[in-house]
Amino acid sequence: MTNKINKRKISLRELPSGEELSLKVIEVDGSFEGPHCYIQASVHGAEHQGNAVIYKLLEYLETNPIIGKITLLPIANPLAMNTKIGTYTFGRFNSNTGDNWNRLYFDFSKSSTEVYDFAKVHIDEDDKNICKEYKKLLKELILNKKAEHTAYGPQYNGLLNLTLQELATDSDYVLDLHTGPIAARYLYVPEYLEKRSEDLYFPHRLIIPNEFGGAMDEATFMPWINLQNEFKKLGRDFKIPFESYTVELGSEERISLIEAESDLLHILNYLHLRGMIKNAPKKVKKSNQLKCKLKDYKTYYAPKGALYDYQVSPGAHFKKGDVLAVGINFENLYRDEPVKFEVKALADGVLINHYPSSSVQSGAELIQAMENVYL
Amino acid sequence: MTNKINKRKISLRELPSGEELSLKVIEVDGSFEGPHCYIQASVHGAEHQGNAVIYKLLEYLETNPIIGKITLLPIANPLAMNTKIGTYTFGRFNSNTGDNWNRLYFDFSKSSTEVYDFAKVHIDEDDKNICKEYKKLLKELILNKKAEHTAYGPQYNGLLNLTLQELATDSDYVLDLHTGPIAARYLYVPEYLEKRSEDLYFPHRLIIPNEFGGAMDEATFMPWINLQNEFKKLGRDFKIPFESYTVELGSEERISLIEAESDLLHILNYLHLRGMIKNAPKKVKKSNQLKCKLKDYKTYYAPKGALYDYQVSPGAHFKKGDVLAVGINFENLYRDEPVKFEVKALADGVLINHYPSSSVQSGAELIQAMENVYL
Amino acid sequence: MTNKINKRKISLRELPSGEELSLKVIEVDGSFEGPHCYIQASVHGAEHQGNAVIYKLLEYLETNPIIGKITLLPIANPLAMNTKIGTYTFGRFNSNTGDNWNRLYFDFSKSSTEVYDFAKVHIDEDDKNICKEYKKLLKELILNKKAEHTAYGPQYNGLLNLTLQELATDSDYVLDLHTGPIAARYLYVPEYLEKRSEDLYFPHRLIIPNEFGGAMDEATFMPWINLQNEFKKLGRDFKIPFESYTVELGSEERISLIEAESDLLHILNYLHLRGMIKNAPKKVKKSNQLKCKLKDYKTYYAPKGALYDYQVSPGAHFKKGDVLAVGINFENLYRDEPVKFEVKALADGVLINHYPSSSVQSGAELIQAMENVYL
Amino acid sequence: MTNKINKRKISLRELPSGEELSLKVIEVDGSFEGPHCYIQASVHGAEHQGNAVIYKLLEYLETNPIIGKITLLPIANPLAMNTKIGTYTFGRFNSNTGDNWNRLYFDFSKSSTEVYDFAKVHIDEDDKNICKEYKKLLKELILNKKAEHTAYGPQYNGLLNLTLQELATDSDYVLDLHTGPIAARYLYVPEYLEKRSEDLYFPHRLIIPNEFGGAMDEATFMPWINLQNEFKKLGRDFKIPFESYTVELGSEERISLIEAESDLLHILNYLHLRGMIKNAPKKVKKSNQLKCKLKDYKTYYAPKGALYDYQVSPGAHFKKGDVLAVGINFENLYRDEPVKFEVKALADGVLINHYPSSSVQSGAELIQAMENVYL
Repeated sequence: MTNKINKRKISLRELPSGEELSLKVIEVDGSFEGPHCYIQASVHGAEHQGNAVIYKLLEYLETNPIIGKITLLPIANPLAMNTKIGTYTFGRFNSNTGDNWNRLYFDFSKSSTEVYDFAKVHIDEDDKNICKEYKKLLKELILNKKAEHTAYGPQYNGLLNLTLQELATDSDYVLDLHTGPIAARYLYVPEYLEKRSEDLYFPHRLIIPNEFGGAMDEATFMPWINLQNEFKKLGRDFKIPFESYTVELGSEERISLIEAESDLLHILNYLHLRGMIKNAPKKVKKSNQLKCKLKDYKTYYAPKGALYDYQVSPGAHFKKGDVLAVGINFENLYRDEPVKFEVKALADGVLINHYPSSSVQSGAELIQAMENVYL
Repeated sequence: MTNKINKRKISLRELPSGEELSLKVIEVDGSFEGPHCYIQASVHGAEHQGNAVIYKLLEYLETNPIIGKITLLPIANPLAMNTKIGTYTFGRFNSNTGDNWNRLYFDFSKSSTEVYDFAKVHIDEDDKNICKEYKKLLKELILNKKAEHTAYGPQYNGLLNLTLQELATDSDYVLDLHTGPIAARYLYVPEYLEKRSEDLYFPHRLIIPNEFGGAMDEATFMPWINLQNEFKKLGRDFKIPFESYTVELGSEERISLIEAESDLLHILNYLHLRGMIKNAPKKVKKSNQLKCKLKDYKTYYAPKGALYDYQVSPGAHFKKGDVLAVGINFENLYRDEPVKFEVKALADGVLINHYPSSSVQSGAELIQAMENVYL
Repeated sequence: MTNKINKRKISLRELPSGEELSLKVIEVDGSFEGPHCYIQASVHGAEHQGNAVIYKLLEYLETNPIIGKITLLPIANPLAMNTKIGTYTFGRFNSNTGDNWNRLYFDFSKSSTEVYDFAKVHIDEDDKNICKEYKKLLKELILNKKAEHTAYGPQYNGLLNLTLQELATDSDYVLDLHTGPIAARYLYVPEYLEKRSEDLYFPHRLIIPNEFGGAMDEATFMPWINLQNEFKKLGRDFKIPFESYTVELGSEERISLIEAESDLLHILNYLHLRGMIKNAPKKVKKSNQLKCKLKDYKTYYAPKGALYDYQVSPGAHFKKGDVLAVGINFENLYRDEPVKFEVKALADGVLINHYPSSSVQSGAELIQAMENVYL
Repeated sequence: MTNKINKRKISLRELPSGEELSLKVIEVDGSFEGPHCYIQASVHGAEHQGNAVIYKLLEYLETNPIIGKITLLPIANPLAMNTKIGTYTFGRFNSNTGDNWNRLYFDFSKSSTEVYDFAKVHIDEDDKNICKEYKKLLKELILNKKAEHTAYGPQYNGLLNLTLQELATDSDYVLDLHTGPIAARYLYVPEYLEKRSEDLYFPHRLIIPNEFGGAMDEATFMPWINLQNEFKKLGRDFKIPFESYTVELGSEERISLIEAESDLLHILNYLHLRGMIKNAPKKVKKSNQLKCKLKDYKTYYAPKGALYDYQVSPGAHFKKGDVLAVGINFENLYRDEPVKFEVKALADGVLINHYPSSSVQSGAELIQAMENVYL
């Protein structure tokens, strides 16, 4: 009655010294058929907490049977995690090209001929079959794209992302585990999942449009939006069975196994509500779940080069006019301005992220906050 | 009869220590009215040769009268140039956000209401007046956009680029001086300038679509394409008077004043053909000018992590099957593969760039080459 | 009756773009003669808290009269502070040469001819005069050394440090404000000041030998040790009037003005006990002051490449066998080892620092701890 | 009659993602007994050419019998080679600690008790036996030191170096293959080998004192100097049989297999002259071999932040007053200084290295040159 746990490696990249880096894929199969949940962590190299959660989940899965299948992918981007410069991790983007690792997924939302043809052919089939067949099509499209990406040699940027997309293709639920810099816990949620996303019990949610911007969540849900649109044109109202979330688990450059236990409860609760785990976890906290639209997710840019003392903690509420940060600039001594100055809130909000260092160039992303929040 | 040379500074950014970095704007006005040519260098921090050319041009302008106006902007991105890590320059993208400095310009090609209205109002005016008035509109649009970009503090990424766009707004010709890694001399040319671009006498040209991709050349010519389209809808055939090129001056991380003299001849020749300089420079070389379409500009990705010995020099022709690079991978000793392997050409071509180091991760951009070249 | 506050700049270095970075020297003179205390911060570019303390001290000095003179030098190494790569600061060492900024001070402890001659000449003078004259000699030696360092151009590494040494030369007390990575508050104290250092009321002290290792504290106290030795040979027992400490103010990459207020109390208390401030600050906490010898200050190196969850906070005591950190290494799945492993204490101790990130290469400095602590 | 070639791996370090980096040791045993030559490359991560030479030598050894044994260690520091930031390699020092990888070897020149005892015991033995026994002692000392270095976990910095020292311990000749930034080919030669080093036919040699400074060459020859000194005290005149050189093979960040063929000839010639190869290679060039003392190896520091155009090539001679580099600084426009300035030679010399980029901060190591050269 226990799960079958299979681990394998996918060779990913060779270092200049010749050594290889690999993906470590852990596939957990329950004894009963059911949905497939795909969970990856650390596409951004400095965002570690997801790995602690995956470790805790793996521990859980060693003794607790599931219905369906869970694929775990810790350290989804080993190259990025290993790019330490000094003691910190230079992992947000390819240090060679600058490309943000979470903006390089491929957009299959526009490949309309195939999707249009698919919709026409399957217009009268039942949802379950459509779902199964559409996943096959997606896999095929991804494999074709991978072939293109290797014609002149393996193009690392896109190839890593296509490989992750391929791993996620036959899943029903995708959780892409990230963190912010110094950050609260929050979700990116596409509009069509605003209601369903409540099941993760996260304290903050950013509601993003059903559009493609290059990220994993979008890359996996957009093909379904696309299919829905094609069906609509043909007169069928298709309900998307697929869910995909970017899950932000606090601050970067750290793990906490204790916090991972609490993070795990959220995920187990979600899996329970999706029928993959029999019993709901006790003790999971259903806090007030604040939301805002992406357009109301505001960035404050540093007004001066300075040392900043952040005055509002991630997750805390502030009012218009509140001091968000205090800056110290000794160059001001020489232009007869006060050394100390304040950065004030332009509107009421909830602080989500702040810059992870006190020394900041003018124009850098100092603070990110939700405005116009609603329940 | 000499030119008036005016220099001013635009405050740009403050460092964490409080010091300021500025743009150094040099405006050269001839005694006679004429076109305005805007020339900037080093938007990418490691691409230095353009500054040597601007130095040589400034020297020239101190004693040689021009017709019209030339704006010189050396070191257009001082923050990027100063981002030295080790002895090299980490200047291609914002080291904080990963954004490529030459993909952050603003797209005014879509702001259709204003452009449509402008076209309607000016449909019957002469080209010269349209040109003058349209530049005013562009300036206004840029200033509005800058206001948006400072509402929550000065957003460095876009603000630098908007400032550069603003400086270029009332020009007729824009030369954005760049370099490749280890590279030949070549131009990026929009389709509508394929013929006119010959006047720069450059040995290689990449013909890019009339589309916006975020770069300076596109950001400055696209509003004119946009205007042309609006006029066409209204039945007027408008010839774009504006020209904009990305000018690639060889390899990064170096300057050569001797090569700058030759580069200068190309620019002086261009200025002469545009009526800004009376006499054509002698000695400028009009070599065969090879072209290819952007879709035929191919990147070879490193097939293995290895030390590479590049076998074809920038500017050299190669045949399908030729060895482009030889790699050495000592890890191969342990998998019974030969230590040495070859990267061969998949088609005939002309090598434009190669990676600036021999130690390369698999999947990195090893070589870039033109295929299907034509005269 | 208020202090005179004078601020000046010392030009320090030019960036590749041409802009200058400067030292910002703030000299505060009381109305009455007295000792001279020199305080600098941020020789290491990521160690910011000292600047917040200097800001608070400057604020205090604007209204509270002192006896003697205080020189404040915030941001003692602007180049290092500005070396941001990603969002963090690459400030511990020269990114070009690797030299640790706090190991580049010049050793005047060996320049024996001059010191020997000085001792012979001044053998019968009183302490005060010796002190005054010896500072003159030191200044002269530093200026000679600076001349050497500029003969073939300005050698930045040593020149910055010689400039700082020069600024500190005529002081009686030197406080060099630093921080650790994730760290407790502690002092580096030379053996001869073990007793006197109590006046700073710091919770932890590392007692270092009276030897030169390249740091600011050593560079400023060693000439006095040297003089004492020369006098001893000549039969005079000379008590060193000079004090110098490296003051570690918690963790890097952050400032806290609230903590700076508490840090300030320690410094004001010290200045009071040295006769520079009339009244003792109230509220300063005299905690238990734990000490250990430098040889008992131990570094634990990461046993594996892994993600670490640190189990003991800076300042906390632990027992032999306690778990200091837990690591997670998913590669272990493929060698049949448990993913999770523990790093245990090899002896009782007090944790002082740990690595500032959870992702760690094997062999990196994971944890630093005091062993064999005593009161 | 062919050589036996054995390859093995030594596990070296784990990355945060869990993967291991290893040393790749290639041991080549000839059919006849003879000396042992140890050759390593790329202790500094950006210095690649040595690996091309080792590749060529390995190719040679596959078909040409040797007398004695050759140990080849390409990519001696894979972590450093893999530390790519941008497209370049950040490989000169530990990016975490700043420690120069070639200054971390252990100094066994002072461990006098053991060496003194050894000298006393072996005072009357023949050279060959002394040599054999002393190598055993050195190995033992290194193993003890390694034990110390792992007591609190594996201290990567020293441990890598101790491992390399261990590999070299039973050799008679050590060649440590490096490169400069943009550089000539030259040798570091200890005084006691000034004459013998001629056998490498290198065009430039820096004669360094018989002292320990942390580098591989010093770490391997100093124990022999030390032994010689102990023997001298005991009245025996011991001729050091051991040789060790730092071999600088041109510029960093590149390999050239064609140049490697020429470099190989130098090494084969040396091995021939040491009796390890029967026939001298033809075609090896014995150029004039210029030398200077280390004290006459001068560094020019950049006088200004600027873009530099280097005027003298590595290996070229220059006269006092010659222009070594021209700088361009546009900030000068705003202080009424000429944009262009010159860096002139302060004495006659031969240029050995220059900075690998044109954009330079003031105070950086611009140029290195030999003065007072002699044949």
